[in-house]
Amino acid sequence: MQDNVSQRKWNVESSKSANNAFNPIRRIVDKGGFKPNPNKSTISLSIGDPCVFGNLNILDYANDLLIENIKSSKFNGYPPSTGYEIAREAVAKYVETPTSKLTSKDIIVASGASGAIELAIGVLLNEGDNILVPKPGFPLYECTSKTKFINVKHYNLLEKQGFNVDLEHLRSLIDDKTKAILVNNPSNPCGIVYSKQHLLDIIQVAREYCLPIIADEIYSDLTFGEHKFYPMASLTDKVPILSIGGIAKRFLVPGWRLGWVAIHDRDNIFSNGRIIEGLISLSQVILGPNSLVQSILPKLLDPQNTQVKEWCSTITKTLESHSKLTVDMLSKANGLKPVCSSGTMYQMIEIDCSKYEDIADDNEFVGKLLEEQSVFLLQGTVFSLPNFFRIVFCAPIDKLTEAYERIIEFCETHKKK
Amino acid sequence: MQDNVSQRKWNVESSKSANNAFNPIRRIVDKGGFKPNPNKSTISLSIGDPCVFGNLNILDYANDLLIENIKSSKFNGYPPSTGYEIAREAVAKYVETPTSKLTSKDIIVASGASGAIELAIGVLLNEGDNILVPKPGFPLYECTSKTKFINVKHYNLLEKQGFNVDLEHLRSLIDDKTKAILVNNPSNPCGIVYSKQHLLDIIQVAREYCLPIIADEIYSDLTFGEHKFYPMASLTDKVPILSIGGIAKRFLVPGWRLGWVAIHDRDNIFSNGRIIEGLISLSQVILGPNSLVQSILPKLLDPQNTQVKEWCSTITKTLESHSKLTVDMLSKANGLKPVCSSGTMYQMIEIDCSKYEDIADDNEFVGKLLEEQSVFLLQGTVFSLPNFFRIVFCAPIDKLTEAYERIIEFCETHKKK
Ligand SMILES: Cc1ncc(COP(=O)(O)O)c(C=O)c1O
Ligand SMILES: Cc1ncc(COP(=O)(O)O)c(C=O)c1O
Repeated sequence: MQDNVSQRKWNVESSKSANNAFNPIRRIVDKGGFKPNPNKSTISLSIGDPCVFGNLNILDYANDLLIENIKSSKFNGYPPSTGYEIAREAVAKYVETPTSKLTSKDIIVASGASGAIELAIGVLLNEGDNILVPKPGFPLYECTSKTKFINVKHYNLLEKQGFNVDLEHLRSLIDDKTKAILVNNPSNPCGIVYSKQHLLDIIQVAREYCLPIIADEIYSDLTFGEHKFYPMASLTDKVPILSIGGIAKRFLVPGWRLGWVAIHDRDNIFSNGRIIEGLISLSQVILGPNSLVQSILPKLLDPQNTQVKEWCSTITKTLESHSKLTVDMLSKANGLKPVCSSGTMYQMIEIDCSKYEDIADDNEFVGKLLEEQSVFLLQGTVFSLPNFFRIVFCAPIDKLTEAYERIIEFCETHKKK
Repeated sequence: MQDNVSQRKWNVESSKSANNAFNPIRRIVDKGGFKPNPNKSTISLSIGDPCVFGNLNILDYANDLLIENIKSSKFNGYPPSTGYEIAREAVAKYVETPTSKLTSKDIIVASGASGAIELAIGVLLNEGDNILVPKPGFPLYECTSKTKFINVKHYNLLEKQGFNVDLEHLRSLIDDKTKAILVNNPSNPCGIVYSKQHLLDIIQVAREYCLPIIADEIYSDLTFGEHKFYPMASLTDKVPILSIGGIAKRFLVPGWRLGWVAIHDRDNIFSNGRIIEGLISLSQVILGPNSLVQSILPKLLDPQNTQVKEWCSTITKTLESHSKLTVDMLSKANGLKPVCSSGTMYQMIEIDCSKYEDIADDNEFVGKLLEEQSVFLLQGTVFSLPNFFRIVFCAPIDKLTEAYERIIEFCETHKKK
């Protein structure tokens, strides 16, 4: 190596975009400072991954399809960046509704719903524009927007009204730079499925202000009891919608990284704005998701496939029973008030800190709980909702029961004398 | 649906970022205008996908590993966004050199080398900065940069000197806004493997100007004969390097979408600049590549695995023989001059249009060839090198022979009288 060193100095710095990307869940989880109690096994109910405990197991049929297609060696090459035609067609059939028909051209498959969210936000907003996202809400919306210097405004969900959107607040946030409303239904972290009427009310706001909707509907199939999921696109013939979905949650395979954007155009608003071309262009940057996973979508998502349907409804019923256990047990804990979930795998619990001797807020609740009882939860602050915590109730019943007993004990121990 | 229509008008437009993303390969390929001759079967030698013809087949062992891990149901959950620890460790061992040791912490796995390139460019450059990329070169660098409003300056490769970098030209492009030099070795589309001395010369420029290097080394294992690949990171202890790699080309599985960034820090230049944190943050936006593919890396990339090594060298030898056939046959064609490849799966051919009656440039050559002979190639213009075309020589020998015979015939037909 030559050695004539120059006058210039090294000055390499991480870009502003990268610095903006930091995911707040990670920031809080990693920083922590609190350590689990070494005398108790840790029970982690913090991450939205149904695979952690091994009790909720993948449908064998999905594995079989994958193995069959691997053996064929037909799906190793590059798919088109928007996805195989067969995959896009399968998603179109799966997502369309009687009032919102789709073809393969309306679907872009992506690297997880996360990748799909990046495409949707990336095509609709420019630097300096703003997007309206729910609070409490899934932190990725903010993190993705910020890497693109898109501003985020949080509209309030009303915890006293089943986490419905505060429509007046939503309206008040809209300005000339607002370019989209993001709606997450069923909701992470709230565990709530919106009524048809409430969705119509949200759509009405979008219509008044001529704003497209990004509908993150990744939990569409996980609804409990009477609660029915209405795809937003099925409820409007005026407001164009990009709906986001994926197989991560329904099929218990978040590691497989397959999601999609479905383009529900209305009155050619999207096509006049070249939104479809824009999505195609953006998909060419990383060339789409894994080909093998794409290849099984026609069978996996086939609406006629009763085997898959039955398996899915069993999973949903299991989660529903976990939700019930959660509410039943934690309602009895000193200072806790669960907000009943109507879907997903999440449960928000309100903390009344006035009931405790020495717990000031949700951060301290969650920190001390980990330190004393080795139960790991996420504080509401992560989702911009202080004085709540979120439980992921995927763990098996015995683990959940043990965790909840420990939480109850913890609440007793810290009870105001 | 309610009907009190507002004063506001719909005005939804694809973002500037999305409009910038359009991949020029697609633009030219789709626009075309030329149609293949219906009386001849089409032979497409245009896309860098070794799987198209089914002659170069995946190693059974890779499939077996994948199937085994699918059956275990252990790899369905979310890996960390930077990749499984075992996957990062496997890549570290695979990529490190005696003079540039790596640990798992130095590796970020990504959705293909494309995803890795997006991370590397995204962490090192801000909007308005510029990156130096080769011309001719792989168009994705420009497309990815432009989505981020990063400017691209093209440094010339000297076609008369085996596509070596024009170092003076490279130097002349550097200004205050230059933040990285991208080097692609072995090169797409040139098919060239750089000598150690030439790489040292490039490194010297980076060192003088204190610029980090992004080394796209995805074709590292595909070198022919005497030609040896030198990882750039092995040649400097002064210039920090992000090296890009992946399994797409070596293992003939581009659809699997697995690549990586390896962080070769020097004198803490990257760590002082928080480049590692920046890469981790960016990886959280789409949460990394498919978990199953990640899970097989420890065995697939094991440097001790002789079965894999032998298979790889067979593939390379096959490609080498295809390269030889290409040069041998096309050297005889009127007006064509192949630039001998020393690696990859690509061959650049110079066109001397003065030898033809009615062919003005590479666009016309490629267009008319498709129309008359149904052979589909990419014109040099796609890679910013007019009056060349690129051949992907992965097809089986009989197909290649037929394609080359048709090209020779085409060159005869259009010969200047
Ligand atoms: C509301 C919501 N959207 C999107 C995602 C991301 O899904 P994927 O794993 O498919 O990227 C999640 C994951 O937790 C989520 O909760
Ligand atoms: C030089 C170069 N870099 C990167 C890539 C992208 O690789 P991947 O398919 O892993 O995204 C390619 C693909 O053709 C390439 O030629």
